[in-house]
Amino acid sequence: MELVDSMINGNIISMARLISLVESGDDQVPQIMKHVYPHTGKAYRIGLTGPPGVGKSTLVDKLTSVIRSQDLTAGIIAVDPTSPFSGGAVLGDRIRMQQHYLDQGVFIRSMATRGSLGGLPKTASEVINIMDASGKDIILIETVGVGQSELDIIKNADTVVVILAPGAGDSIQTMKAGLLEIADIFVINKADNPGADDLVSEIQTMLQLNTRKHEIWEIPVIATQAINNYGVETLYQQIHSHHQTISKSGVLAQQRKEQRREQFINTIEQEISAELLRMMKRDIQLKEYINKVEMAEIDPYSAAYEILSSATLLDMLAQQLLQRKRHND
Amino acid sequence: MELVDSMINGNIISMARLISLVESGDDQVPQIMKHVYPHTGKAYRIGLTGPPGVGKSTLVDKLTSVIRSQDLTAGIIAVDPTSPFSGGAVLGDRIRMQQHYLDQGVFIRSMATRGSLGGLPKTASEVINIMDASGKDIILIETVGVGQSELDIIKNADTVVVILAPGAGDSIQTMKAGLLEIADIFVINKADNPGADDLVSEIQTMLQLNTRKHEIWEIPVIATQAINNYGVETLYQQIHSHHQTISKSGVLAQQRKEQRREQFINTIEQEISAELLRMMKRDIQLKEYINKVEMAEIDPYSAAYEILSSATLLDMLAQQLLQRKRHND
Repeated sequence: MELVDSMINGNIISMARLISLVESGDDQVPQIMKHVYPHTGKAYRIGLTGPPGVGKSTLVDKLTSVIRSQDLTAGIIAVDPTSPFSGGAVLGDRIRMQQHYLDQGVFIRSMATRGSLGGLPKTASEVINIMDASGKDIILIETVGVGQSELDIIKNADTVVVILAPGAGDSIQTMKAGLLEIADIFVINKADNPGADDLVSEIQTMLQLNTRKHEIWEIPVIATQAINNYGVETLYQQIHSHHQTISKSGVLAQQRKEQRREQFINTIEQEISAELLRMMKRDIQLKEYINKVEMAEIDPYSAAYEILSSATLLDMLAQQLLQRKRHND
Repeated sequence: MELVDSMINGNIISMARLISLVESGDDQVPQIMKHVYPHTGKAYRIGLTGPPGVGKSTLVDKLTSVIRSQDLTAGIIAVDPTSPFSGGAVLGDRIRMQQHYLDQGVFIRSMATRGSLGGLPKTASEVINIMDASGKDIILIETVGVGQSELDIIKNADTVVVILAPGAGDSIQTMKAGLLEIADIFVINKADNPGADDLVSEIQTMLQLNTRKHEIWEIPVIATQAINNYGVETLYQQIHSHHQTISKSGVLAQQRKEQRREQFINTIEQEISAELLRMMKRDIQLKEYINKVEMAEIDPYSAAYEILSSATLLDMLAQQLLQRKRHND
């Protein structure tokens, strides 16, 4: 595939074009990913997550500088649940990354949670694979928010960094958000703010109570002040050290195996969903059902189960998918 | 259906049993929801959301007291992305609600994000409908986190309250989290903390810039101190006032129409996904595919598209769903 080959040869515009095609749910996605996939697996993938307001973007910015100083290239994916209305502010926030926008060794892409055709986790993981195939050494995956979709995206990462800050949610909130069990490294950012030391101790205490996993790796808690560039080198070293540990122990190989399985299952699920939504917009019989449901002439559950068990829906789905395949072959 | 009838007649144990069946993705769910649905639509549904650490649980607790003082009954659904590991702490958090646990006019259910068979938004919306059918006057839907799944749950609400607090994410973070566009009412909790007044003004300024919607309703920004019971009555009055406004204008009817359509589409989507996952665990051919994908003998995308376009998968799906229906009839 020409566009993929051109990207592999270093053409940044081809990469941007491929990402746009994937984001718009283009018909060529199956072909694209088939050609992209053999080139993936070389990049190291770092996930960065945490509640809003802890300074994730700034930390990613400074971490990128450290990565570049090692003469490594970076791909950055920032997932924001952006609204059309707030587009401006989010762009404003990204301005902090401006220095890296001019750097050929860094490729940055913001992705919006809303309106992603075919599901956000799938699209994000395709974009990650494209950046990986393009030859970037390190992929940084930044997610705002702590919801299920966001955690699904983080599953694509080899090392997961959970970022907290004093004032923005205490340790109990962290547990409630399910962040404790996904962290390989904890960062307490804004370490000069009051309450930072307490938060470090709280997290350390919680980690000591966790006997569930990590026999091979002791989860560190790192204090940083991203804005003053303090602690960022230490973070990078710990990421590197985690990488080495999981490589040697075979954990990385196991994780990648699971990532491949997830990708397989998610692709099937989300292609079916996407096809279904397309059908809902076109098919007259389905439209009639929707109309009845909206008018409360039939309850939504009965309507759904009726359609599912009539097998017509799945027959139509099968035909549509087959047709789409023929079109691409 | 006996269990549904018993719940309608006020049996709390039947309600709890129905909710458990729905949460476990039981085979009877289609039958249950068919019988539950005709009894829904009477309860008023209030969604409460915001970033972690703003005091949502406390506010829900105090709001429940106001509701009870009006001689109205309440159903409360709290969605936490709980991990097994953190179960204890979350329970601890719920202890604040203890006074209401002993009150027959209040039914409380915590739901975990993880491991919900068939998708969290669907399960949550089924639980909301069950509580509605049981005759509760008001349903409070509390979600922790700001992810896509959580926002999908909030779509079930008639009035959406977004809760913020000084220190836990600034106004730009609020926009990034997509909260600005879903709010019917803003609450700035912990209003005695430094920065509260600034946050109120910031949100007010942002709302003035929003020309997108709300011609019929001016979004209020309410300062509260839930822990001292300050501002909670005002919040309740504003919710009531929003309810009246959207009822009169026909917006409520339109929203409910959309909720029914969403429920229809989500039920179809998530039943297909759930069936797919069951098949993946049983079917030998599918298992072989998964194995090849895990071993990197075939890339996950090619494997997925191969299976989708072979039509065997969808044939099998259709058969399974048909069989399930026969089993239930």
